Amino acid sequence: MKKLIFSIIGAGNGGHAFAVHLTLLGFKVNLYDVDPERVQELKITGKIRAEGALKGEVSINLITNKINEAIVNTDIIMVVIPSVYHASIAKAMAPYVSGDQIIVLNPGATGGALEVMNILKEEECSSIPVVAETNTLLYACRSPRSGEVLISGLKEKVCVAALPSRKATQVANLLNQAFPQFQPVSSIMMTSLENVNAMLHPAPTILNAGRIESQEVFRYYFDGVTPSIAALIEQMDNERLEVGKALGANLPSVSDWYGYSYGVQGESLYDKIQGVTAYEGIQGSTSLNNRYLFEDIPTGLVPLSELGKAVGIETPTINAIVELGNTLLKRNFWEEGRSLKRLGLEGKSSTQILELLSS
Amino acid sequence: MKKLIFSIIGAGNGGHAFAVHLTLLGFKVNLYDVDPERVQELKITGKIRAEGALKGEVSINLITNKINEAIVNTDIIMVVIPSVYHASIAKAMAPYVSGDQIIVLNPGATGGALEVMNILKEEECSSIPVVAETNTLLYACRSPRSGEVLISGLKEKVCVAALPSRKATQVANLLNQAFPQFQPVSSIMMTSLENVNAMLHPAPTILNAGRIESQEVFRYYFDGVTPSIAALIEQMDNERLEVGKALGANLPSVSDWYGYSYGVQGESLYDKIQGVTAYEGIQGSTSLNNRYLFEDIPTGLVPLSELGKAVGIETPTINAIVELGNTLLKRNFWEEGRSLKRLGLEGKSSTQILELLSS
Repeated sequence: MKKLIFSIIGAGNGGHAFAVHLTLLGFKVNLYDVDPERVQELKITGKIRAEGALKGEVSINLITNKINEAIVNTDIIMVVIPSVYHASIAKAMAPYVSGDQIIVLNPGATGGALEVMNILKEEECSSIPVVAETNTLLYACRSPRSGEVLISGLKEKVCVAALPSRKATQVANLLNQAFPQFQPVSSIMMTSLENVNAMLHPAPTILNAGRIESQEVFRYYFDGVTPSIAALIEQMDNERLEVGKALGANLPSVSDWYGYSYGVQGESLYDKIQGVTAYEGIQGSTSLNNRYLFEDIPTGLVPLSELGKAVGIETPTINAIVELGNTLLKRNFWEEGRSLKRLGLEGKSSTQILELLSS
Repeated sequence: MKKLIFSIIGAGNGGHAFAVHLTLLGFKVNLYDVDPERVQELKITGKIRAEGALKGEVSINLITNKINEAIVNTDIIMVVIPSVYHASIAKAMAPYVSGDQIIVLNPGATGGALEVMNILKEEECSSIPVVAETNTLLYACRSPRSGEVLISGLKEKVCVAALPSRKATQVANLLNQAFPQFQPVSSIMMTSLENVNAMLHPAPTILNAGRIESQEVFRYYFDGVTPSIAALIEQMDNERLEVGKALGANLPSVSDWYGYSYGVQGESLYDKIQGVTAYEGIQGSTSLNNRYLFEDIPTGLVPLSELGKAVGIETPTINAIVELGNTLLKRNFWEEGRSLKRLGLEGKSSTQILELLSS
């Protein structure tokens, strides 16, 4: 069996972890970053060192800020960048990808694979690769500086879905050559709609806007998610679950997710969150212009709302949070974000969407 | 000229002030309150004493918790209760009012006169009085206990509008027998849409929900209305002004209102609010279940949104605040509040509404 060659797109926390891990496992890795300075820093030694759950220092096959160099002749393109950049990287990759490659968004947030696939088609990509997305990043990790990464843990299971859907098993099998954690799921709605960040980030940020902009020190989860705010999150979560049902995805609630991810018990979501020891030390931002809004709204709440609209499910609480995010940041996430148009679903009926998702 | 007889509906702060002021001016006053205990307390001496801008102690003609006793044979019915109770008091008064009386809501909030008029018609009131509403309460006052009121000031001008509109001048002329401050305006949209509380109360409360429910001490205006929250208020205010324009009412902005009400200057609404010395000492609530939400949403934001809908003006920011208020308080203010149905405007065209407002 030919040893797979990987592209790693993005030399942030997760990109560092994938690059070192794959190289330690004996795979050839091309590491790309859009930032020439970061690439320059990495090329000084050409090495990445891991500490924590994985230990070792490796030389990376290729470090580059040229996307064509990074992806030509590789088998699997692991995209490990903030979801708001999925569209621009897809556009940049479109001239160079080929139909025997697999793009994997780690993770896709909501609608990542759909958005990337739509861009590849719009760019008239001659030979379209499989586009896969995961529900989460394999690693809990942090890169304190270029060339170093602290890996505090690896998830036991990462779900991967694909477009076309029937390719999920093949994608998972290939990834399993490096990572036993990847497991195929039948629909990208399973990965796309399991967007817990979209539930936990924008609403508490907006409902603590006064505190945040007053630059008050507060514990994001323990002080910021009060009982009424937790109840509001559950309301948004019910909307998400209803959208999932209409799209054939039977999803766990955020409250259930806390149970199996953190092992916490409690009568309410509020009680569970108060019991998550991993949240100790996590403070609220001191600016509203942060990823909890400008990332989780356009690639989380907007596509949730838009998918709901496409299948006749109303999402009034989610919509209200998007609207206030727009006003507070003076942006229009309905247009910037993953609308039905950007997901390639505009004008499609529920039936057509369900067919697409199961093709 | 026959001396007018007044009913005062509501023995709260404003009701105390009207009762003592009118009696001092030599008018006969019937004072009603829904709460039998409060009536009992007031009846012990039958007197009210004023301190501050008005001073004196008077015996009230009649103090009662029977609505028919309070309003039969009076000329002007001054309603001085929270706006969320306008509907229930209208229903209670319907069997006893007559066409030669005038009901004045002090103030009406948004849509008060419309809501009361609609109830009188629904209740098949045989002889329908003029229903008027003001933009504000004449007094700045506080009743520390039954029978006492501290009047810290009187407004220089109170606008009054009526249904039918052409009666505003007659209403103002009658009220001027007691109060020179009342001035007629041509449309209830002038009084109804000048709802500054609807701009200043719900949004900062919701955007400080975390603080409020954490029972944190903060200054409601100075700390609670941060630059981004002030900008969001201005966005809501633009929506309000657009609704006004479409309904023929050219309204001052909240920012202009701060200029002429408090004499503050500033480049932005944020700057102006920071300069209002009257806001010193005003702290945020320690519960989300307070009048800033459960009053100003159903009788402020809901009718603003509904009137906008009737004339084709979108109010997305206002709607988002209503929606989050619904979720946080687990209520449905779209149904409980002053909807087009409750305002008697359901199914009416813009043209029909404009005709009604100018009749």
